[in-house]
Amino acid sequence: GTTSSALKGAIQLGITHTVGSLSQKPERDVLLQDFEVVESIFFPNEGSNLTPAHHYGDFRFKTYAPIAFRYFREMFGIRPDDYMYSLCNDQLIELSNSGASGSLFYVSSDDEFIIKTVQHKEAEFLQKLLPGYFMNLNQNKRTLLPKFYGLYCVQAGGKNIRIVVMNNLLPSSVRMHLKYDLKGSTHKRRASAKEREKAIPTYKDLDFMQDMQDGLLLEGDMYNALCKTIHRDCLLLQSFKIMDYSLLVGIHNVDKACREQVSEEAVAGAMDQRRPPGQKSLYSTAIEAIQAETGGTGSLDTEDKTGGIPARNSKGERLLVYIGIIDILQSYRFVKKLEHSWKALVHDGDTVSVHRPGFYAERFEKFMCNTVFRKITCK
Amino acid sequence: GTTSSALKGAIQLGITHTVGSLSQKPERDVLLQDFEVVESIFFPNEGSNLTPAHHYGDFRFKTYAPIAFRYFREMFGIRPDDYMYSLCNDQLIELSNSGASGSLFYVSSDDEFIIKTVQHKEAEFLQKLLPGYFMNLNQNKRTLLPKFYGLYCVQAGGKNIRIVVMNNLLPSSVRMHLKYDLKGSTHKRRASAKEREKAIPTYKDLDFMQDMQDGLLLEGDMYNALCKTIHRDCLLLQSFKIMDYSLLVGIHNVDKACREQVSEEAVAGAMDQRRPPGQKSLYSTAIEAIQAETGGTGSLDTEDKTGGIPARNSKGERLLVYIGIIDILQSYRFVKKLEHSWKALVHDGDTVSVHRPGFYAERFEKFMCNTVFRKITCK
Repeated sequence: GTTSSALKGAIQLGITHTVGSLSQKPERDVLLQDFEVVESIFFPNEGSNLTPAHHYGDFRFKTYAPIAFRYFREMFGIRPDDYMYSLCNDQLIELSNSGASGSLFYVSSDDEFIIKTVQHKEAEFLQKLLPGYFMNLNQNKRTLLPKFYGLYCVQAGGKNIRIVVMNNLLPSSVRMHLKYDLKGSTHKRRASAKEREKAIPTYKDLDFMQDMQDGLLLEGDMYNALCKTIHRDCLLLQSFKIMDYSLLVGIHNVDKACREQVSEEAVAGAMDQRRPPGQKSLYSTAIEAIQAETGGTGSLDTEDKTGGIPARNSKGERLLVYIGIIDILQSYRFVKKLEHSWKALVHDGDTVSVHRPGFYAERFEKFMCNTVFRKITCK
Repeated sequence: GTTSSALKGAIQLGITHTVGSLSQKPERDVLLQDFEVVESIFFPNEGSNLTPAHHYGDFRFKTYAPIAFRYFREMFGIRPDDYMYSLCNDQLIELSNSGASGSLFYVSSDDEFIIKTVQHKEAEFLQKLLPGYFMNLNQNKRTLLPKFYGLYCVQAGGKNIRIVVMNNLLPSSVRMHLKYDLKGSTHKRRASAKEREKAIPTYKDLDFMQDMQDGLLLEGDMYNALCKTIHRDCLLLQSFKIMDYSLLVGIHNVDKACREQVSEEAVAGAMDQRRPPGQKSLYSTAIEAIQAETGGTGSLDTEDKTGGIPARNSKGERLLVYIGIIDILQSYRFVKKLEHSWKALVHDGDTVSVHRPGFYAERFEKFMCNTVFRKITCK
């Protein structure tokens, strides 16, 4: 098998090559066919006239839909040089919190990009999704969907390791006091004992309902804009028969952070010092979800540069909320059809998170806009 | 069979109904599935609770991809009310120059819209084209492709009559002194004797090469922008294996028009008075092709409001040139595959207009940017 360091090395060599060779091709419009293209290049250990020598085993690197992803990166404001530099010029850092999916996660050392290994079916599904993803990106600038920057495959030792490059939703320079993975389902949606032992556990729906009974309070304009965005995203996901996605919610408590800062030098403020703060503020998904269409200016503007949405908790403390819809690839029609039929027999339909896409979307939307986010009433 | 007046009436009733019922549906993003939708409504002679009574035979009206075309109309700046009003509130005028295709052409009485009957295969092909058309519209604002506003089908007396609503490239308020249908082919590309008898014949490639040996002279910026646009459009058409399209070129000679105006009252200036000038200047395709990306302002701005591209002929006379790519539906892979194989045997490959799409596109582009349009050298 490929060791983690060999995988990281292969990813970096592969991305360097593919971005480099792409930059030599002239700019042109993305065509429908571009979504189906797969480019492949062989990296022999001893090097070739196209590839450098390296100290890993021979491998092959495949790039899916290169022209389409170049367009997406451009739409997201990622310059080719920055993309390559962030991912390839320094060590990729492996994250331990791989969750239940069994995926490996890496983050670029500048904290900008997440690399996630995906299964064959997920990669295939993402490729099928690309035309609809293109359409969404062009109509719905506020979308909370993952920003997909690239899809690749490393073939080595008879194995295929598929990876997807995405935006990092939670900037490591911002201390998250609370973290939730929310689906709008109550069935078994509580963080495990093991999860709770972590420094910053990822809590779930039942935990949220118990700990934050008044939800996250938003100004009226922001609340409306956010719920509109969630509605549009849910319609899209439903149209693709996608289910089981989550809203990842990171909460930074500004007031708490101020109090903590006083005694910070004494305490081990480990989290904040792990890495230098991101340079390009790519974490903007959250704030974009409510203000992309206003052009980033106007009444919804905030001083925060990390992309958090300003909110309050029931105590009136100031919060910055970081959100994004995650895990949209791992569940869809084919996989979940079976699962649903027997789970629906066993459990109450309303609380089973694996349900038909329309029901899933509606429940998700309702939970987020009634329970998680609330409008501040009379100031 | 359906008489022309019954067809016009059915079109107007159908469009009124479909635009009206669409306006009652809430705005939402276009999804991939929307391209495949066909809505159908029955119009019995005696009326129904959904449709008014009318004095034609019973008919059924089908609307293809209503949500997608609503999006396209919005992108083109056509408000639903204006669309309905222009097409349905006054008589549709039948045009006589149906050409070789056998299609019927109607123009709305305000001169804004062209309605064209299309064959089953063409309608089917347009529907398949829609995702790629969407992509092009979002990337290439300068495109010279037809603006498709709607695709419908009238079913009456066992017959299906499919129609497509498009922009009118040549404003009737502007007298066209010359008109060309250009393909970049020389094989049989000369206007027939019958065509030449018309008041304003549509000339072809060989006529152009003979009559306008120095081509249409454009300022450097405009020339470059236009050729870039033609290049991008050709790449798209090639990607869809489309061939046999033409560049429709209408030339208004400003200086000639000034001279004519002096004696106009004496002469029958019939052309100009046929209809009131268009209200909304939808003929902007031509000028958009060189300036859409500059937002309509900047150095390329002209005083002309009808959308003509300012140019000169070899005598130095001022021209306004109206252009657009037409006939992109009637020829594609399936239809033309056969035709090519035997024509290629008979004729020189270079001069047969029916050739493989890549060759067709390249020859088209070369002809337009080398022979038809020329850059003004040293002022």
